[in-house]
Amino acid sequence: MSSQGKTITCKAAIAWEAGQPLSVEDVEVEPPQAGEVRIHILYTGICHTDEYTRSGKDPEGVFPVILGHEGGGIVESIGEGVTSVQVGDHVIPLYTAECRECKFCRSGKTNLCGKVRETQGKGLMPSGTSRFRARGKPIAHFMGTSTFSQYTVVAEVSVVRVAPAAPLEKVCLLGCGITTAWGAVTKQPGIKDSTVAVFGCGCIGLGVINTARDVGASRIVAIDTNPAKESWAQKFGATDFVNPTKLPEGTRIQDHLVKIMDGGLDFTFDCTGNVQVMRAALESCHKGWGVSTIIGVAAAGQEISTRPFQLVTGRTWRGTAFGGVKGRTELPGLVEEYMAGKLKVDEYVTHKRTLAQINDGFNDMHGGECIRCVVDMA
Amino acid sequence: MSSQGKTITCKAAIAWEAGQPLSVEDVEVEPPQAGEVRIHILYTGICHTDEYTRSGKDPEGVFPVILGHEGGGIVESIGEGVTSVQVGDHVIPLYTAECRECKFCRSGKTNLCGKVRETQGKGLMPSGTSRFRARGKPIAHFMGTSTFSQYTVVAEVSVVRVAPAAPLEKVCLLGCGITTAWGAVTKQPGIKDSTVAVFGCGCIGLGVINTARDVGASRIVAIDTNPAKESWAQKFGATDFVNPTKLPEGTRIQDHLVKIMDGGLDFTFDCTGNVQVMRAALESCHKGWGVSTIIGVAAAGQEISTRPFQLVTGRTWRGTAFGGVKGRTELPGLVEEYMAGKLKVDEYVTHKRTLAQINDGFNDMHGGECIRCVVDMA
Repeated sequence: MSSQGKTITCKAAIAWEAGQPLSVEDVEVEPPQAGEVRIHILYTGICHTDEYTRSGKDPEGVFPVILGHEGGGIVESIGEGVTSVQVGDHVIPLYTAECRECKFCRSGKTNLCGKVRETQGKGLMPSGTSRFRARGKPIAHFMGTSTFSQYTVVAEVSVVRVAPAAPLEKVCLLGCGITTAWGAVTKQPGIKDSTVAVFGCGCIGLGVINTARDVGASRIVAIDTNPAKESWAQKFGATDFVNPTKLPEGTRIQDHLVKIMDGGLDFTFDCTGNVQVMRAALESCHKGWGVSTIIGVAAAGQEISTRPFQLVTGRTWRGTAFGGVKGRTELPGLVEEYMAGKLKVDEYVTHKRTLAQINDGFNDMHGGECIRCVVDMA
Repeated sequence: MSSQGKTITCKAAIAWEAGQPLSVEDVEVEPPQAGEVRIHILYTGICHTDEYTRSGKDPEGVFPVILGHEGGGIVESIGEGVTSVQVGDHVIPLYTAECRECKFCRSGKTNLCGKVRETQGKGLMPSGTSRFRARGKPIAHFMGTSTFSQYTVVAEVSVVRVAPAAPLEKVCLLGCGITTAWGAVTKQPGIKDSTVAVFGCGCIGLGVINTARDVGASRIVAIDTNPAKESWAQKFGATDFVNPTKLPEGTRIQDHLVKIMDGGLDFTFDCTGNVQVMRAALESCHKGWGVSTIIGVAAAGQEISTRPFQLVTGRTWRGTAFGGVKGRTELPGLVEEYMAGKLKVDEYVTHKRTLAQINDGFNDMHGGECIRCVVDMA
């Protein structure tokens, strides 16, 4: 434990500027300050949100930055006053903090937390500074997690301890995609015995399909333009698959679904981030009671639209971030569900990369065959 | 009862073509067919939805037509098989039918009813024909009610008996505006002890304000561009009034409300039909849990828009038609509430007109001082 209290020099994948490949190089990671935790990251997933910022499409993206928000690691040291995790704990960093003290946390109505939101959005620790330096310059944090570094520093409110027996190369994925999907379904009342449509069969979409099956949806329609996703969707529990590109010329997916599903779906989920798909997902809902949930993150500046009549006639449009899950409170239980064989995680991992290959991992993600690529940070 | 089984010739206000004033003239009203009810209309309100169709803005408007959907009357005769109302019953026609048999009615999730929807939308009785003729031509029905005629024919599923002691010149308004407002609030869980913003202080807006107060909202912010509405809003229970035109140059109403209401409102209601206001109402909601309900009817072709981030961060966008109220089941109770002094109705009536003056009633509605104009059909 000789590293405690000292700056650690390790490898990280740095995004020096928007649109460029990540650069794996030395980074200096300062010790955690009061209320902070330094984590030895062992594994991290790569998610579309990392790519969204790397590509430069995120207008609020700060550079240079260390991306990554789906990680698993071991606590290397803790700052003053930290009590909820200890050195050696296996942990998952949380991009959605949970302070249990702010108006949001106390409301009982949302998993959003206001505690570190403002500095997190600026790529800084709550104190307003960064713990990363490379080439003599400060490097920004990302989503309060920055898991593309062998060592990272996070706020205590942004990390949760999980069972040490859980394989971190798997449960790191609970830091974003799978948990988001699980929460989006389990926290939505009424899905049992109802019909569900899931737009997009990536990690999130497959997770929604799988959770919808677990909670007892009567029929689960998966929608994807990639024909290879049909077998994936079936494997995760879909009862039907529709490829919108295979519909007769001029047939909109929402009209098709309303027709084949006796007026539409009880619940729909957008897992694409495409605003046109979000509209289709809403308009595929059954009149009178259909509920559409937006999970995907749209590109900056893009807007969703529909005729207000869609809502006046009883459809509801909502969204969710991190599936509505309170990470510090709920993630340990989710890890236990996985350990007990009740929650799929292994099945999402299609690709593995080393830190040196992380840019290949981004390429994997763009291919149609990748669900999740996990990076071994060693 | 000599009129039973015979065609009645009476006065009606006919909209011969879009954009023209209504013409008060003789109309022949055929006897009710099986499952139909002929009603002697004594009073009717004038609502913006009538004007929407009269003006020609409604692309689905059928002409010539007898408008009107907020009426009160007495059953003159009933067709074969009608059991739920009898000759002499005091009744309110319902533009939202309730058949209690269709998928919608049986769902327990919505007040929408599929039974007569298709023919109603075409201006016809469920059999596909009209009961009105004038100048030798068939005249279309409107919203299944056509209360701008001294006698009208409606489907049995589109009418409800109310207490005969209730003054029809008042409770006719329960056929649309006041009931819509009442239902929009009472059927939305959580308003007690919450903050509410109401956009638009017409009949619906005032009804929402009043009902929100009755159910115990902690603070009710009324928003209207007409300064004269401030005292109206206060009279109906608003705690605050904001005139968006009086904000500093460049300040959007949603930004103002988020600022003065500690992050935004728990619940907002659009009672304007203006799609920009609908957006403002959504974006005035508190992050994490705010719910915005669209009550107003937008002009054809207009769309609502927002950034999906608004929903992903926990706001919900929904709508309601007739306040989610099942008319045949719930309206008698609402009339009783009024009779017991628990529901405001009289307070909404600012103008009275005769059938001959009905076009003046439309002009009244366009003025800023009118909440509701009731037409005496005698």
